[in-house]
Amino acid sequence: MKTVGHLINGELREDTGRTQPVYNPSTGEVSKQVALASKATVESAIAAAQAAFPAWRDTPPAKRARIMFRFKELLEQNAKAINQLIGEEHGKISHDAGGELQRGIENVEYACYAPELLKGEHSRNTGPGIDSWSEFQPLGVVAGITPFNFPAMVPLWMYPAAIICGNTFVLKPSERDPSSTLLIAQLAQEAGLPPGVLNVVNGDKEAVDTLLHDPRVQAVSFVGSTPIAEYIYSTATKNGKRCQALGGAKNHAIVLEDADMDNAVAQLVGAAFGSSGERCMALSVVVAVGDKAANQLVEKMTAAMQALRTGPYSDSSNDFGPLITRAHQEKVKGYIDSAEQDGASIIVDGRQVQVAGYEQGFYVGATLIDHVKPSMLSYKEEIFGPVLQVVRAQSMEAAMQLINEHEYGNGTCIFTRDGEAARYFSDHIQVGMVGINVPLPVPVAYHSFGGWKRSLFGDLSAYGPDSVRFYTRRKTITQRWPSSAVREQVQFAFPS
Amino acid sequence: MKTVGHLINGELREDTGRTQPVYNPSTGEVSKQVALASKATVESAIAAAQAAFPAWRDTPPAKRARIMFRFKELLEQNAKAINQLIGEEHGKISHDAGGELQRGIENVEYACYAPELLKGEHSRNTGPGIDSWSEFQPLGVVAGITPFNFPAMVPLWMYPAAIICGNTFVLKPSERDPSSTLLIAQLAQEAGLPPGVLNVVNGDKEAVDTLLHDPRVQAVSFVGSTPIAEYIYSTATKNGKRCQALGGAKNHAIVLEDADMDNAVAQLVGAAFGSSGERCMALSVVVAVGDKAANQLVEKMTAAMQALRTGPYSDSSNDFGPLITRAHQEKVKGYIDSAEQDGASIIVDGRQVQVAGYEQGFYVGATLIDHVKPSMLSYKEEIFGPVLQVVRAQSMEAAMQLINEHEYGNGTCIFTRDGEAARYFSDHIQVGMVGINVPLPVPVAYHSFGGWKRSLFGDLSAYGPDSVRFYTRRKTITQRWPSSAVREQVQFAFPS
Amino acid sequence: MKTVGHLINGELREDTGRTQPVYNPSTGEVSKQVALASKATVESAIAAAQAAFPAWRDTPPAKRARIMFRFKELLEQNAKAINQLIGEEHGKISHDAGGELQRGIENVEYACYAPELLKGEHSRNTGPGIDSWSEFQPLGVVAGITPFNFPAMVPLWMYPAAIICGNTFVLKPSERDPSSTLLIAQLAQEAGLPPGVLNVVNGDKEAVDTLLHDPRVQAVSFVGSTPIAEYIYSTATKNGKRCQALGGAKNHAIVLEDADMDNAVAQLVGAAFGSSGERCMALSVVVAVGDKAANQLVEKMTAAMQALRTGPYSDSSNDFGPLITRAHQEKVKGYIDSAEQDGASIIVDGRQVQVAGYEQGFYVGATLIDHVKPSMLSYKEEIFGPVLQVVRAQSMEAAMQLINEHEYGNGTCIFTRDGEAARYFSDHIQVGMVGINVPLPVPVAYHSFGGWKRSLFGDLSAYGPDSVRFYTRRKTITQRWPSSAVREQVQFAFPS
Amino acid sequence: MKTVGHLINGELREDTGRTQPVYNPSTGEVSKQVALASKATVESAIAAAQAAFPAWRDTPPAKRARIMFRFKELLEQNAKAINQLIGEEHGKISHDAGGELQRGIENVEYACYAPELLKGEHSRNTGPGIDSWSEFQPLGVVAGITPFNFPAMVPLWMYPAAIICGNTFVLKPSERDPSSTLLIAQLAQEAGLPPGVLNVVNGDKEAVDTLLHDPRVQAVSFVGSTPIAEYIYSTATKNGKRCQALGGAKNHAIVLEDADMDNAVAQLVGAAFGSSGERCMALSVVVAVGDKAANQLVEKMTAAMQALRTGPYSDSSNDFGPLITRAHQEKVKGYIDSAEQDGASIIVDGRQVQVAGYEQGFYVGATLIDHVKPSMLSYKEEIFGPVLQVVRAQSMEAAMQLINEHEYGNGTCIFTRDGEAARYFSDHIQVGMVGINVPLPVPVAYHSFGGWKRSLFGDLSAYGPDSVRFYTRRKTITQRWPSSAVREQVQFAFPS
Repeated sequence: MKTVGHLINGELREDTGRTQPVYNPSTGEVSKQVALASKATVESAIAAAQAAFPAWRDTPPAKRARIMFRFKELLEQNAKAINQLIGEEHGKISHDAGGELQRGIENVEYACYAPELLKGEHSRNTGPGIDSWSEFQPLGVVAGITPFNFPAMVPLWMYPAAIICGNTFVLKPSERDPSSTLLIAQLAQEAGLPPGVLNVVNGDKEAVDTLLHDPRVQAVSFVGSTPIAEYIYSTATKNGKRCQALGGAKNHAIVLEDADMDNAVAQLVGAAFGSSGERCMALSVVVAVGDKAANQLVEKMTAAMQALRTGPYSDSSNDFGPLITRAHQEKVKGYIDSAEQDGASIIVDGRQVQVAGYEQGFYVGATLIDHVKPSMLSYKEEIFGPVLQVVRAQSMEAAMQLINEHEYGNGTCIFTRDGEAARYFSDHIQVGMVGINVPLPVPVAYHSFGGWKRSLFGDLSAYGPDSVRFYTRRKTITQRWPSSAVREQVQFAFPS
Repeated sequence: MKTVGHLINGELREDTGRTQPVYNPSTGEVSKQVALASKATVESAIAAAQAAFPAWRDTPPAKRARIMFRFKELLEQNAKAINQLIGEEHGKISHDAGGELQRGIENVEYACYAPELLKGEHSRNTGPGIDSWSEFQPLGVVAGITPFNFPAMVPLWMYPAAIICGNTFVLKPSERDPSSTLLIAQLAQEAGLPPGVLNVVNGDKEAVDTLLHDPRVQAVSFVGSTPIAEYIYSTATKNGKRCQALGGAKNHAIVLEDADMDNAVAQLVGAAFGSSGERCMALSVVVAVGDKAANQLVEKMTAAMQALRTGPYSDSSNDFGPLITRAHQEKVKGYIDSAEQDGASIIVDGRQVQVAGYEQGFYVGATLIDHVKPSMLSYKEEIFGPVLQVVRAQSMEAAMQLINEHEYGNGTCIFTRDGEAARYFSDHIQVGMVGINVPLPVPVAYHSFGGWKRSLFGDLSAYGPDSVRFYTRRKTITQRWPSSAVREQVQFAFPS
Repeated sequence: MKTVGHLINGELREDTGRTQPVYNPSTGEVSKQVALASKATVESAIAAAQAAFPAWRDTPPAKRARIMFRFKELLEQNAKAINQLIGEEHGKISHDAGGELQRGIENVEYACYAPELLKGEHSRNTGPGIDSWSEFQPLGVVAGITPFNFPAMVPLWMYPAAIICGNTFVLKPSERDPSSTLLIAQLAQEAGLPPGVLNVVNGDKEAVDTLLHDPRVQAVSFVGSTPIAEYIYSTATKNGKRCQALGGAKNHAIVLEDADMDNAVAQLVGAAFGSSGERCMALSVVVAVGDKAANQLVEKMTAAMQALRTGPYSDSSNDFGPLITRAHQEKVKGYIDSAEQDGASIIVDGRQVQVAGYEQGFYVGATLIDHVKPSMLSYKEEIFGPVLQVVRAQSMEAAMQLINEHEYGNGTCIFTRDGEAARYFSDHIQVGMVGINVPLPVPVAYHSFGGWKRSLFGDLSAYGPDSVRFYTRRKTITQRWPSSAVREQVQFAFPS
Repeated sequence: MKTVGHLINGELREDTGRTQPVYNPSTGEVSKQVALASKATVESAIAAAQAAFPAWRDTPPAKRARIMFRFKELLEQNAKAINQLIGEEHGKISHDAGGELQRGIENVEYACYAPELLKGEHSRNTGPGIDSWSEFQPLGVVAGITPFNFPAMVPLWMYPAAIICGNTFVLKPSERDPSSTLLIAQLAQEAGLPPGVLNVVNGDKEAVDTLLHDPRVQAVSFVGSTPIAEYIYSTATKNGKRCQALGGAKNHAIVLEDADMDNAVAQLVGAAFGSSGERCMALSVVVAVGDKAANQLVEKMTAAMQALRTGPYSDSSNDFGPLITRAHQEKVKGYIDSAEQDGASIIVDGRQVQVAGYEQGFYVGATLIDHVKPSMLSYKEEIFGPVLQVVRAQSMEAAMQLINEHEYGNGTCIFTRDGEAARYFSDHIQVGMVGINVPLPVPVAYHSFGGWKRSLFGDLSAYGPDSVRFYTRRKTITQRWPSSAVREQVQFAFPS
């Protein structure tokens, strides 16, 4: 059985040591092993990155960018193989894997803008004959720790930006679906990155803790669940590193009565159940304002859900595939059970879904629950499964209050035709990414991705303009060339 | 005896409770008491800030800025009174206090640019018929904790920027010299800030810890010594807050043989001894490259130091005044003793300085030490006194290596006429603020202030553009207005 | 009788020579004379500006900005006197003059941002060891030619921006109402501008042509009517100067059926009749979509217009005052006559308005005309009077086509609650300044003002960010410091 | 014999009509014919561009950019064929053609940044509940007219930027060497541009005048000689179009005594003679400060020039090739004659160069002239040939005065090691593109290209950030959503 290894200093390495099985969630079978890096292996990756740094930080940004141009070409040429690996190990249907990869490629496109993004600010004559400018210099070795749900995209949120800023990188991807991540990193290498600039180590907590404690690592980017994000953030910052740690979500849509209901339903179905709801931007709660809107919504949603097909990644006519593990499958079902016990109405029930020929796959069918209350466990926690819950509110203000009081603040959306409602919502909602009739308001690659409240720890968002600031240090230079004919006087006062 | 109190919700409050003496360092006498806020007092300030937030965040940035325009006028009109308070409690000579205040006013000027600084990024057609834009919204209640050495300026690095971004503020200034800080905050109030937008609490660790632990405080800015900065940063971030914590420094100047030596000496005298060296940008080490340069430098420096006058703040013909406390005076003398014991040469000795009529003042005279080695305690630690140490290096590379290996990376400078040397130095030196023939390269208010390495913990620098990013949260809105004639299709793939 | 003269090189000068009467339009009487500068006088102003340039371009931007801070204070302190002069010579009621001045002050506030606005772009390592940066340097002597309708505001669109960029300025304001303009320029002088940095010459075509032909004048900004704008633009550019020339307008509002009609009417009344319609952003045509909306609009508008008071500037309870000259009064009445003759319905007729005690004033009352057709003269041309014309359209598309086919493209507006309609309108309408439920969409001072089509000739808009670009020249510096140890090889190929 | 035709609406067209021979300057023979477009042909190109505009302006910028990514790939794949065509028709040696193409590709890379470059400015709460934003919308049909000396690069300065802004384009390239330009446009088409978005018409004054007068053409970019630039600029602007017209140059280098003379000579040889001096950034005058520097420079330059090889494009060991036409060859020789007659010293004489086997080619050898005076014709005019003239000055100030007094202000350079000299020079020299030890300071693609004085007519420079502003119109939208519960009051004053 194949073992997925590491990419260190430009070479694939397996290391002898601990491994862990990688499943095919569509069948429930183990398909590969993944190597779990020891502390020593991670340190060798850090050392390779450290060694590659001086030459890489001196490479002109335009030349760094040119490697990203080539990387984009290679990603496009290898899309099919990448999507296949995502499907095998994550369970995504090919159209969904393709969407993920395309979003990742857009981050590579953004990285191609390096010379523009790295421009500093220049001021002539800050004082008489004095000039001053600020540059954005790289940090050195930086690390990324990424989740299973977007094995292609989330790493591409991080290292293209970090690398074009002049940093070198150590990536610790999810050990659940490591193969597409590794292939993509190999393509980056093939595109022209010098050895050591990008390193991938597969592993578990040992690898993570090595990255969090090694003094050579200057910054850590993380995407995952909120409890781990908190641990990463407090540990990394305590060790004097920069950190941005993105956590969980509970994304609500508000539906007003004036919304185009057919459109809203069409949007919500995809946003709630796509990728089995295993997205931090999945739309998992819909707040209908007024019973008329609620009833209409539930009715149309129920109808729309009849057509949904759940099944293995390999059949592209499926709408979505299995969950990532059996344990997660059980956990999602448990949330549906708890909602039922708490008195909510299970309108469409995906707990008993059976996929012929794939009985051991980790499937849960699309589920719709009505009359959910804020006090229920299924409302409070992130389910990360194909479960859409309906809450009924009597006013837009009440609906907004629900959202503002939730601990998470990643994404949200409103469906309406009314300009005033949209404006009020977008201004006052305490959520970082807001959609107006857009249920998955993932910012494009040239804006940045970041939630509020307990969905993100750190000052700066992921990818886009914020990532350039995150991966650089400001250096400000003040310059005066004294004329040799002039002898300046001693100045004791603070210069003004 | 007067007690300096707090400014909470627009009103001066003293509270009954603990107090601490405030000294006049020029005479060594106690001149006032300062109230030390209890947890409850700090919480009332936070509550006032929290209550003021909703209306303030909705106030147009242009109107917020207009208060800053008025604030600038009031600061200029009250400059004399402010400088007098600085002198009394800190010991700065009036020309130096005036310089400090002027730098602070420049930060208020920068805050007047609010409408420009808060512009977000707008993208038409991120997809067909879809628009997207990013805004920079305020955080809520934010806090600042500031040091004794710039009681007027450092608070003005923080709250004008925070406030024009729409935040409300709680300031905990140094309890050693609280009066100028409080007067300035009252002027901000008089300029038109609504009650609760800016609050000042005097206090000690109890106040600091209340700010670090209260969940309503969203972000903390700190300037002080490195050990405290580390504590602030790890505690604030562990509690889920943003934090920027600026710490200590050991700023080196390199002097090359081709430098205009008279100019270099003139600059160094001011940069080393101004404000008794109690500046985080004070130039405390000079690295002379080559013995010829070193000898010439020491000779000219010794001559220049003859003219220096140390004495009370009230005599503006003095070059610099006393240190902040008797304990600090002893500590500085101890560093000179240790250098002597370690084998360095005390060329000019300020340990025995006597100021007639002010024998109890906390004075140390300007001190020059030659033949200092990197292994000496006096080299490793921040002295924060009027002591300039000379290290001799045999090459520019060796001089740069000294700087790069020091734990601090706040400011540095090179004296040369050579363009290539200046460029190489500014590119490769691992320090955040770099001077070319400028010994105190404090960035102007429209750039940002921040050291590297253990001189700053956090992602973003103080004041200037970085402060606007620090005091705001990015919110990205994606908007589509579906035509009622169009029924969009369900989309399961991740949108690309 | 007083003669209004020039401000040249910091001094008021009258010159003996031609003069022209200045009227008080509220009474119809001549109140002053204005000097009309000869070619020689204008040339002396240009010479003063040229002489002041070298020192002013070397003055740090922060110091230039500080004069603008002071200028703002002086404008606020002298607001009453300025508004009185505007009223006397232009006829504006004090609340309207105050609004104009406030807008002008906002441009001065923007000029205070100089250090931020003048930042250049800096790129480290455009090639190995090569740095490159772009600066925005001043042009030299630049000129402004401004209209009667905003004697305070329009000059403040121009010279604060030009001056903080380091240019020196010659202003040729309208000779109809020169006094407020001159007073304001004197206040700028008092704020600290060195003599010659700002010069004002009153005059007519002789003055204008001197500015257009003198080779020392580097750029010309103009606001006025389209035929003159065209002349200015083609003459200035033919002489190798930069030019931006803002001309006429015919601003349409579209009113959809879903609009809040009371609000729309309230907004339209002010936007159509304020300042007697003598604004290039006046709303002079309203296109009602559907007869229901049209009928309701005309009915409510007619009712609202009953309350309007027309009269002299000195009575602040008036809504608007007289037109600028008797000739213009006749011209406006003529347009109403022509509409009547062409078959439109005069719903409210302002032609016969009589103001008791001011029978010789140049008054025309608020006029509403319905059933106007695009073929009518009154529709095609700019009336510049208190005349609102209603056109009826059967669809939003048809309404937009009307606007897109008109030769002017200054401002426009839509009244609706519908997000989709607003988005489609703002994206596709061929007009430079667009309001959504905002009838006078004059951009704030930190955006820029500019129409499309024959409303603006030139690349860059007035005030705001564009004005900084207009008043500066880009200079790009590429720098390499060759190591003396390295002998570069000859390179014949074009560097890449 | 082949006829080079047009690319209109996605198709190659020849049209029957006038033609003109295309020479191979290396042999002096006619190699092809080029079609000269009639007015009707140009109008059909404009019509195609006009028809393609509405759909193209609605295409998301990210999709437009993606075509540029593909275009870059195709240019790299076809580099050899392009360089061959450049060589055949222009005479450039392959390494030089490759450098030109690479620079052009860099402009395509810049165009890939479209989504970032087109971001507008967004302001929340410009007033209470009012938002405002500025967008940069395309102009419509825009035209470019380009010179023979960079048939690949200069068109790529223009249309990639114009097209990614949403405009459609008509290019009129030089009729002397049209083939590489046409091939490159075909590759752009192949990369995915819809038909009509990019059109190429070959032609002469008839074509140019059609573009200058057709009201559908919104803007014209031109690069060529100053007399034509002036004509283009005054004609286009008179017709109400935007225009940027880049003209001639006379680029001076100053050499100070402290310069690394071997490096300076190596740089100057390439900058003066590369591409036979037919570059608007060619270094054609060197001002030596002091006779010591002058003598050393002339001596070393004379030596370095011995090794130069002139010959046909097809031999890549040649340093540079022929001039573009026999007429131009005669003109260049005439300038050398005139310098000789005016008393200058011809140190190295290229007039009699003979290339064996290519006796009819249009060759002039590298020529060095010393003791040139500002009064000589050869100094005043642009020679555009491989002729370097040495002027001797007694001070840096005198050298700078020469440059500042010349009518052109395209590029300039100083050779020195002294930081102060470099700073003073770059700040005060009246030239748009400045090199410090860089003899051809062509800005990189992410800065902009533009001379000062009579080297550029217009407000905005070519390519880079300025080109985005040139090819777009600012539209500012101000939006308020009135609450239906609120009836706003009439407002007559100008809104403030």
